[in-house]
Amino acid sequence: MPRVDKQLRRIGRTLEKHYRDVQDIEFTIERGKLWMLQTRDAKRTAQAAIRLAVELAKERLVSKAEAVRRVTPEHIDYFLHPQLDAAARSAAKEEGTLIAEGLNVSPGAAIGQIVFDADVAEHWAQKLKKKVILVRPEPRPDDVHGMLAAQGVLTSHGGRTSHAALVARQFGIPAVVGVVSLEVDVQRRQMRTSTGKVLKEGDWLSIDGGTGEVYAGELATVVPDVTDPYFVELLSWADGFRRLGVWANADYARDAERARKFGAAGIGLCRTEHMFFEAERLPVVQSMILARSTEQRAQHLAKLLPMQRGDFVGLFQAIDGLPVTIRLIDPPLHEFLPSHDELQKAIVELETRLRLSYGDPEALEAELRAKRKVLDSVEAMREQNPMLGLRGVRLGIHMPELVRMQMRAILEAACECVREGVKVKPKIMIPLVSTSAELQLQRALLEEEAQEVLKEQGMKVPYQFGTMIEVPRAALIADRIAEFAEFFSFGTNDLTQTTFAISRDDAETGFLSEYMQKGILTRNPFATIDQEGVGYLMELGVKLGRQTRKKLEVGICGEHGGDPASIAFCHRLGLDYVSCSPFRVPVARLAAAHAALGELKDQR
Amino acid sequence: MPRVDKQLRRIGRTLEKHYRDVQDIEFTIERGKLWMLQTRDAKRTAQAAIRLAVELAKERLVSKAEAVRRVTPEHIDYFLHPQLDAAARSAAKEEGTLIAEGLNVSPGAAIGQIVFDADVAEHWAQKLKKKVILVRPEPRPDDVHGMLAAQGVLTSHGGRTSHAALVARQFGIPAVVGVVSLEVDVQRRQMRTSTGKVLKEGDWLSIDGGTGEVYAGELATVVPDVTDPYFVELLSWADGFRRLGVWANADYARDAERARKFGAAGIGLCRTEHMFFEAERLPVVQSMILARSTEQRAQHLAKLLPMQRGDFVGLFQAIDGLPVTIRLIDPPLHEFLPSHDELQKAIVELETRLRLSYGDPEALEAELRAKRKVLDSVEAMREQNPMLGLRGVRLGIHMPELVRMQMRAILEAACECVREGVKVKPKIMIPLVSTSAELQLQRALLEEEAQEVLKEQGMKVPYQFGTMIEVPRAALIADRIAEFAEFFSFGTNDLTQTTFAISRDDAETGFLSEYMQKGILTRNPFATIDQEGVGYLMELGVKLGRQTRKKLEVGICGEHGGDPASIAFCHRLGLDYVSCSPFRVPVARLAAAHAALGELKDQR
Repeated sequence: MPRVDKQLRRIGRTLEKHYRDVQDIEFTIERGKLWMLQTRDAKRTAQAAIRLAVELAKERLVSKAEAVRRVTPEHIDYFLHPQLDAAARSAAKEEGTLIAEGLNVSPGAAIGQIVFDADVAEHWAQKLKKKVILVRPEPRPDDVHGMLAAQGVLTSHGGRTSHAALVARQFGIPAVVGVVSLEVDVQRRQMRTSTGKVLKEGDWLSIDGGTGEVYAGELATVVPDVTDPYFVELLSWADGFRRLGVWANADYARDAERARKFGAAGIGLCRTEHMFFEAERLPVVQSMILARSTEQRAQHLAKLLPMQRGDFVGLFQAIDGLPVTIRLIDPPLHEFLPSHDELQKAIVELETRLRLSYGDPEALEAELRAKRKVLDSVEAMREQNPMLGLRGVRLGIHMPELVRMQMRAILEAACECVREGVKVKPKIMIPLVSTSAELQLQRALLEEEAQEVLKEQGMKVPYQFGTMIEVPRAALIADRIAEFAEFFSFGTNDLTQTTFAISRDDAETGFLSEYMQKGILTRNPFATIDQEGVGYLMELGVKLGRQTRKKLEVGICGEHGGDPASIAFCHRLGLDYVSCSPFRVPVARLAAAHAALGELKDQR
Repeated sequence: MPRVDKQLRRIGRTLEKHYRDVQDIEFTIERGKLWMLQTRDAKRTAQAAIRLAVELAKERLVSKAEAVRRVTPEHIDYFLHPQLDAAARSAAKEEGTLIAEGLNVSPGAAIGQIVFDADVAEHWAQKLKKKVILVRPEPRPDDVHGMLAAQGVLTSHGGRTSHAALVARQFGIPAVVGVVSLEVDVQRRQMRTSTGKVLKEGDWLSIDGGTGEVYAGELATVVPDVTDPYFVELLSWADGFRRLGVWANADYARDAERARKFGAAGIGLCRTEHMFFEAERLPVVQSMILARSTEQRAQHLAKLLPMQRGDFVGLFQAIDGLPVTIRLIDPPLHEFLPSHDELQKAIVELETRLRLSYGDPEALEAELRAKRKVLDSVEAMREQNPMLGLRGVRLGIHMPELVRMQMRAILEAACECVREGVKVKPKIMIPLVSTSAELQLQRALLEEEAQEVLKEQGMKVPYQFGTMIEVPRAALIADRIAEFAEFFSFGTNDLTQTTFAISRDDAETGFLSEYMQKGILTRNPFATIDQEGVGYLMELGVKLGRQTRKKLEVGICGEHGGDPASIAFCHRLGLDYVSCSPFRVPVARLAAAHAALGELKDQR
């Protein structure tokens, strides 16, 4: 039927030109006559979608703006998650290890050993360092801690809006739900497929949250190629439309390099305390905290100085020429000390042994004394609500020598880099500010140290001071805060915690899930900015801040900086940039372009 | 010199008429001639000041408004603090036990045993239940916990604005500072007077923070007479001027009676959970929390119901005819359970004994199992930041049967009282609301229970639903909250904590004192409302709330409700009432009148 074939091709071209997209066409041929039944935009993989959008634009069938619009954040996200290797997938299908299919509710491939309850999942993952897939008939809100510990989640019941799906998407955990052909028997620690195959706890499983496929065994995975030319070209077009800058949160040189590769235009948040937790540094940090005198403390700080300086040298080199926002120490100091519970347990055991005359009394006494001394210090610093305690700028005011050391490390590193020909733009960021006086005081102290270093080094290095806006009061008095800040960065994680009075660590695996299931909250405010409450404060903060300082630079460095809906909101607020994890940078570039294009559309 | 005498009396009358106040006149008589040197308003005791104000007004030398204006909150406060008995004071002076005098920085008399450091003060007061006076050369910020445990504070150095004075005034602790004639020797645990008398730790001491006097020994005290006719009359005049209602916070019938006696027009806050801590109830509360099934929990709640009902009957009877605002359960449930640390210690001890084969293994095992079971429950409920955790309305949504029981107890009590001829006006207050949906849901649940009770009882009792505004988000979306609330009550303690991101329990004895000493904060925001930040949210809350519900009743029930500066602020915001502790009611009545009079003056 060459005539019909020719006719079909012609109609196909017409339809694709009309709909400006590849078509999935249904037709029938009855007695040599072609009948067109239906046409719709064809389904496609993320790679195909991006390639198609780029090609259609190059063929001038759609504008570049339209091409950018047609690609979704999920398409981009695909490139940033591991996927099942195509060859391994085909081989598995041939071998018959594709055991079931369900709803593809959270993208990415996950490989791990099967576990049937959340506690085991947590234990295996955290204590035994195993990779696990949590398999449940239908997860309950109190399974969340197990989900968070798992590589992926599989449930035999539940739908796209089920609790498991919701949580998995929010945390970026690959998940397949509603796999009704699997019979999960938690009591007997096994599951049975429709063909009678039985998988037990500890057996390997591979799931694809992008397709909903479930394979027995350990399949190979690939990380999609972020240098794919279509991917790169489409994102470069997106960059042409967006008004928001996209920066990244990076604590180490290796993160900074990745961020740069993904297209970040700066570092929006470097958390300096992460460096303190490293194995060789922690004992020095602990001695510094426990020091009984200023002199003792100074000695330990002197040991930390070259380490921090080295961190900053690495960061400046990796990001040569781009701005680096360095947040001074933020967490309460007791986070660096040994666990209160562990110390207490050790002490009671020693006391009991001593009382029962079991062991060498002198040795026991000596050990007891040493442990008690540490416990005393830990108890003196223990807080009922550490989230609202002695941290951030409060710490900088309480223990000025600590932030002075950090300031010195930053500027000594900057001078060293400048001498090597590296271009540095350090931005010093002071966290948890709630009054303008504390910012003024802290900044004066740091300026003093900075001038001292630059004088010693005989150099001039430009640097800026700014602050996090992460406490409701800071947003409310942003006009006064801006007197002492050259930039603002919204710390929306903490701002959400304080605006709602919700402790995220406690609530996200607790009543917050319950709230979403009951429809009290339609979205997790820690994933997408709560525009009504937190957003109100942000808007006020921007307005008041720029009243005082017209060109005040304003960004966001909470996790919301990588969420498309939140990025659109930041665009509307007129922020200068969003800063997110390096892996989210490409998504943020697209989402920022969408926000700008949406505005153009609205203005038409 | 009868002529001069007569002349002096005449001039005195003229001066007092002119200055409209009792005068302290200096004069000299030289060679029979009277020379007037100086005149000023005479110093007086609180009693004298009030009496004088009332008498001047009765003689029409000043207006009633002026009389009210001349009395300060401190004068009123005097009537509410114990004072040294006048006879005991005279006797002590004769006996020579008035050992020193210093600066009178915080009013009231305090009697207790001398201690020389804060830890001992805390230990003696809390563990040994002794009354102590903390004596220090000059207290340091980390002495605050000792000050809070003490009856009174004495320091040999420091001035009116010293840290000790500041803290003492804010907490209402009688204090005398700058007693330079005392030589305090902390090492030797003693102090020496200028006459060589030595007082040791444990010796009794009496101080008068209103006069600055320090006596050795245990002097008798009196509580000034709040039925003093001048005091009563002046306050009744004040009531005529004020626009703000004055209510009281009262959890028990006896508090409610006192509040009424002091002139409260309602109960602004009854904390229902305080009743749960009573010795005979706590075990039932614990069993209810630890119940493994809904049926089990229902059984324990059924035992609590008559107890709570009894509480409310008492409260309604005591306050017959006035509104009673009953806040549903607020604190996280783990506050009612045994201490995590104590359980852990007991378990480690049992484990160690078992491991060392010390004692009957079966008995040890059994005890261990029981303790571990409780510890598991306590750990499951443990939160990193309980202040921001599962409490308030979140608890009511998570465990609806608990608040249903409370609602039932309130309405059954109300019906019982109505049948006895008592007039009841219950106002049900839902705490920690941050979204309108949670208030809507919780209210619907409670309405259902209420209707059920009233149907059973065959009666109609009027009741209202309202909410605390104590989370920043609630103030920001007050228009939507007001859709489901008939009244608002600002919980300024929690609102201050969340607006500043400060945990009061941790900070007030820690960095908050440091902040005040360094001038970062000029006032303790937990004593006087922070108008810039917390006040901004309150203003917004009132405005938005009344946009939705024009006649929305708005009050405040945080501790700020008894602070004159905060009361003036609440007056300006147009609140309906302030609610404070019963002992602060008279002060609040005066302060509210001052606020109204100040406004009249401004308008002139």
